[in-house]
Amino acid sequence: MARKNDKIIITCAVTGGVHTPTMSDALPITPDEIATQSIDAAEAGAAILHLHARDPETGKPTPDPAVFMQFLPRIKQATDAVVNITTGGGLGMTVQERLAAPLKAEPELCSLNMGSMNFALHPLAGKYKEWKHSWEKPYLEGTDDFIFRNTFRDIAYILQHLGEGCGTRFEHECYDIGHLYNLAHFVDKGLVKPPFLVQSIFGILGGIGADVENVAFMKQTADRLFGDDYVWSVLAAGRFQMPFITQAALLGGHVRVGLEDSLYIGKGKLAGSNAEQVAKIRTILEELGHGIATPAEAREMLALKGGDRVAF
Amino acid sequence: MARKNDKIIITCAVTGGVHTPTMSDALPITPDEIATQSIDAAEAGAAILHLHARDPETGKPTPDPAVFMQFLPRIKQATDAVVNITTGGGLGMTVQERLAAPLKAEPELCSLNMGSMNFALHPLAGKYKEWKHSWEKPYLEGTDDFIFRNTFRDIAYILQHLGEGCGTRFEHECYDIGHLYNLAHFVDKGLVKPPFLVQSIFGILGGIGADVENVAFMKQTADRLFGDDYVWSVLAAGRFQMPFITQAALLGGHVRVGLEDSLYIGKGKLAGSNAEQVAKIRTILEELGHGIATPAEAREMLALKGGDRVAF
Amino acid sequence: MARKNDKIIITCAVTGGVHTPTMSDALPITPDEIATQSIDAAEAGAAILHLHARDPETGKPTPDPAVFMQFLPRIKQATDAVVNITTGGGLGMTVQERLAAPLKAEPELCSLNMGSMNFALHPLAGKYKEWKHSWEKPYLEGTDDFIFRNTFRDIAYILQHLGEGCGTRFEHECYDIGHLYNLAHFVDKGLVKPPFLVQSIFGILGGIGADVENVAFMKQTADRLFGDDYVWSVLAAGRFQMPFITQAALLGGHVRVGLEDSLYIGKGKLAGSNAEQVAKIRTILEELGHGIATPAEAREMLALKGGDRVAF
Amino acid sequence: MARKNDKIIITCAVTGGVHTPTMSDALPITPDEIATQSIDAAEAGAAILHLHARDPETGKPTPDPAVFMQFLPRIKQATDAVVNITTGGGLGMTVQERLAAPLKAEPELCSLNMGSMNFALHPLAGKYKEWKHSWEKPYLEGTDDFIFRNTFRDIAYILQHLGEGCGTRFEHECYDIGHLYNLAHFVDKGLVKPPFLVQSIFGILGGIGADVENVAFMKQTADRLFGDDYVWSVLAAGRFQMPFITQAALLGGHVRVGLEDSLYIGKGKLAGSNAEQVAKIRTILEELGHGIATPAEAREMLALKGGDRVAF
Ligand SMILES: [Zn+2]
Ligand SMILES: [Zn+2]
Ligand SMILES: [Zn+2]
Ligand SMILES: [Zn+2]
Repeated sequence: MARKNDKIIITCAVTGGVHTPTMSDALPITPDEIATQSIDAAEAGAAILHLHARDPETGKPTPDPAVFMQFLPRIKQATDAVVNITTGGGLGMTVQERLAAPLKAEPELCSLNMGSMNFALHPLAGKYKEWKHSWEKPYLEGTDDFIFRNTFRDIAYILQHLGEGCGTRFEHECYDIGHLYNLAHFVDKGLVKPPFLVQSIFGILGGIGADVENVAFMKQTADRLFGDDYVWSVLAAGRFQMPFITQAALLGGHVRVGLEDSLYIGKGKLAGSNAEQVAKIRTILEELGHGIATPAEAREMLALKGGDRVAF
Repeated sequence: MARKNDKIIITCAVTGGVHTPTMSDALPITPDEIATQSIDAAEAGAAILHLHARDPETGKPTPDPAVFMQFLPRIKQATDAVVNITTGGGLGMTVQERLAAPLKAEPELCSLNMGSMNFALHPLAGKYKEWKHSWEKPYLEGTDDFIFRNTFRDIAYILQHLGEGCGTRFEHECYDIGHLYNLAHFVDKGLVKPPFLVQSIFGILGGIGADVENVAFMKQTADRLFGDDYVWSVLAAGRFQMPFITQAALLGGHVRVGLEDSLYIGKGKLAGSNAEQVAKIRTILEELGHGIATPAEAREMLALKGGDRVAF
Repeated sequence: MARKNDKIIITCAVTGGVHTPTMSDALPITPDEIATQSIDAAEAGAAILHLHARDPETGKPTPDPAVFMQFLPRIKQATDAVVNITTGGGLGMTVQERLAAPLKAEPELCSLNMGSMNFALHPLAGKYKEWKHSWEKPYLEGTDDFIFRNTFRDIAYILQHLGEGCGTRFEHECYDIGHLYNLAHFVDKGLVKPPFLVQSIFGILGGIGADVENVAFMKQTADRLFGDDYVWSVLAAGRFQMPFITQAALLGGHVRVGLEDSLYIGKGKLAGSNAEQVAKIRTILEELGHGIATPAEAREMLALKGGDRVAF
Repeated sequence: MARKNDKIIITCAVTGGVHTPTMSDALPITPDEIATQSIDAAEAGAAILHLHARDPETGKPTPDPAVFMQFLPRIKQATDAVVNITTGGGLGMTVQERLAAPLKAEPELCSLNMGSMNFALHPLAGKYKEWKHSWEKPYLEGTDDFIFRNTFRDIAYILQHLGEGCGTRFEHECYDIGHLYNLAHFVDKGLVKPPFLVQSIFGILGGIGADVENVAFMKQTADRLFGDDYVWSVLAAGRFQMPFITQAALLGGHVRVGLEDSLYIGKGKLAGSNAEQVAKIRTILEELGHGIATPAEAREMLALKGGDRVAF
């Protein structure tokens, strides 16, 4: 069984690389916006902040470490939250590009995608008539031919260079049942050590879909493969966000919110900020009798190296 | 619920592109061997023959239509079995290469892989000391960096050119739960029409693993997504072959055997031929009270165009 | 699949026959208390009120129709909520006793327990040192030898005399998976007609236990047996109440609260009233984006005869 | 997870108390018939023989120890199989009657039913026009009002007097998910100690039904409650016998056959003997690669006291 805790870790994924500026004015773009929304999310109750960077002019996802370095120190200074940097980056980046910022920043935690897959956003392209930037529509449309690359060799490389090399631990992103088996392969080889964080993701076209039944099965499979060696969290795309993470909490898991995962706060209603989503899930969790983990408690559950041992 | 039939369709995957000549002397390589084993498998009870081609000299998987044409007509002449040609080919082939033979042969049925994924055979490379051919070891070892490419655009292309273009129907190969959702995407768009054949695959590193619990969940998910619009079959890799397909039959599904999927007939015992595996599952199914579908019955269940309407 | 509705029906089970006066001062005992708490629960959002009667002096469950008639008309007058009367009564009553009040009142809805089972409360007896009434401790202690009797003949009798005879429909209480099969038996015989209400119950010693995994399996089984002929609701005993009914809502079900099922409002904190529990689940459901069904909407979903066609 | 063994224990339930003489000429009635069929079943591969007695004249189930004593010593003398005596008896016997023979014989193993339930055979009564004996039809018809009584107090009594008193261990018969929780209650109280045998039963009207999905869920629940403290076996009623026990074997369980559970050997074909069913499942299990446990191996897996330490 996944390690159970009385307290639930809220991760907030502040901007990501999936949504584009046209989709919501609340999506943070500039380093300043990313820092401000991150800090607000932490104050609302997020123990972990999962971060991507965007080109401040166009809002396009960027792997540039210099941009990351414009918001990472500010966030570190203003909050105690765990900083978690993407290794997935944005569509079309090479693995080397995706690793540039994490290897430079040496954060406590990074996302690590546990398999290659189609990652298709092209149905979104038809939902908007006018676009703020010219890159947005082709970025989305092209995903009908896009493969999110994470081969076994890539994953081993990241585990070795970022994990063993920098003392970074991972949010192992599992978009399907097979990704759990991929993770088990690395656990068997000794490259991943407990307690490790499994982030299960529902509702991306190309991965496992957003039917509630899938959440329990994902956990059952992880229980079978990992016993109590893992800590489990869930995120879901778009309108599935709140019900799916509530489902996870009922099953003993942790939760992830944020505008990377969903731009909404209710049916047809855009969220005004990341903090708004943190506050909403916090209310639900507290009504259900759960406590909310502090950054210190999250660090202990995940055996992180400490917020003062990073390179930013 | 998947369409249920009193009779079970046995598919035999005669040689595939995964195993290499070193692994078993029984693996058919030449057109003559492929034809002979196919015909024997049909006589033993296989209603469908799933076929790849290999270079007659080296045994390496080949997409060359000329090689296919050396065994397809012989099989057609000698048996009434449904001929099913791969569109997956072998590791490293482009999609265009993979389609060359099917577009030429216009068979009743082709495999169609329902998503991109890591497809890793590298742990096999360490199991053999001496190799019959020089290509075998690097072919296997390199798969730690291999992605089996099947983007949404690729799949749509195959559905249009081979499906609509040639009247070919598909064995939709689903290596994970997400692949069912990918299939549902094409069903929703009207590119796949009932009754369609879902082949669930267990035990390939990169896809869903070989735990028996996964079989029932795969079916539950397909039932939820497809109701009675689909016909369900199962295959499993290696030593999981017989128990997993027996599991499928207990749940109302059809079965696939063959040396593409497993080289064994029992614990540590290599199968002497494809027909031997067909005979074994036939015994189990008959003891459990099932009948075995003839090619004509399989054609009707799958709404195939007929064995006389192919281009070989 | 269970019939889905945008709106969720909240049932409130106001006093029941399981808890005893010692356990909570908030447990309504007298007709006046039962009426008052029922009306408050309805105003807080309960569309259905599930009712037992108690001896006004001792608080012991009573089947006496005269006692029921002291609160039923008041509730009818003050609210539009659906009145649902128990046919389970209290421990040790005969089936004829259990039916006296319902046959007299001819309500729109009655509970109907779908099988015989051990119904054990004896572990509760050890939790209290002093008792308000002398009947309480032996009432609980004796349940280690108690069978809650609901044979096939009993159920058929109730379906005929109360169902066909009075136009009453049923909350089919299912304490285990087998009870769904018992219900399917009566559906097959035409004695139960859609849309019927299945109330799944978790956490009574003798029935299915309170593990969250059981909720989804109960629904899967009901989906398999009943398709969309049924409306699904969940209740859970004690501290499992809120998480289990939230789980039900995530799976498309309706919910039941009330002091019959749990005396608590939070960890170790007794609820002050039934209405308090109604308000709490209402908050959670609304945060998750659900609407709350009115009595009129509940009547339509359940095809009830109407609040004006009862005999009180 | 249930304790896994390479070898599978076949239990044979030779005559039971459910079927009546009219239903099959092969049903053993007299002590001589019961002894002969038991010995043959053991020779065919059954490691455990589960036994009821019947009135030699009428074939009606009897609790009379004197009748048991006419076949128990013969079986003990002729085979090494584990003798397992019912504590369920036949419909309508009191718990004291049901215990008479086991307390006298002090066998290594006895069945123990883990809860009260409706146990309905009345639909069978309509399938036969002429009856061999006058008791048969009313015996079956009356079950629409029959409760199979096994209260918590009854179970505790049996565990103490037969279990602790005689060194007998138990085949814990679980007809529904709740029965596993009842068993967990006794495990928690220390009255049942590992390794204990859980026999899951499917297809009795009143208990969990015969849908294959239920088998895996029964095991998942037992895994959750008991970890590796238990040994798991399955039986299923009537035509579900062979597929359900094959299902159990695929999930790592043991199997029970015998004319108590099913009178058939194939679709519409009555079995000629118990041994015929043992042989059939043995073939299937061996084709699937399983070994068959000897009585000595079964004794070790179940920690039995030994065949020489009984009172017959
Ligand atoms: Zn991200
Ligand atoms: Zn193939
Ligand atoms: Zn009640
Ligand atoms: Zn028995």
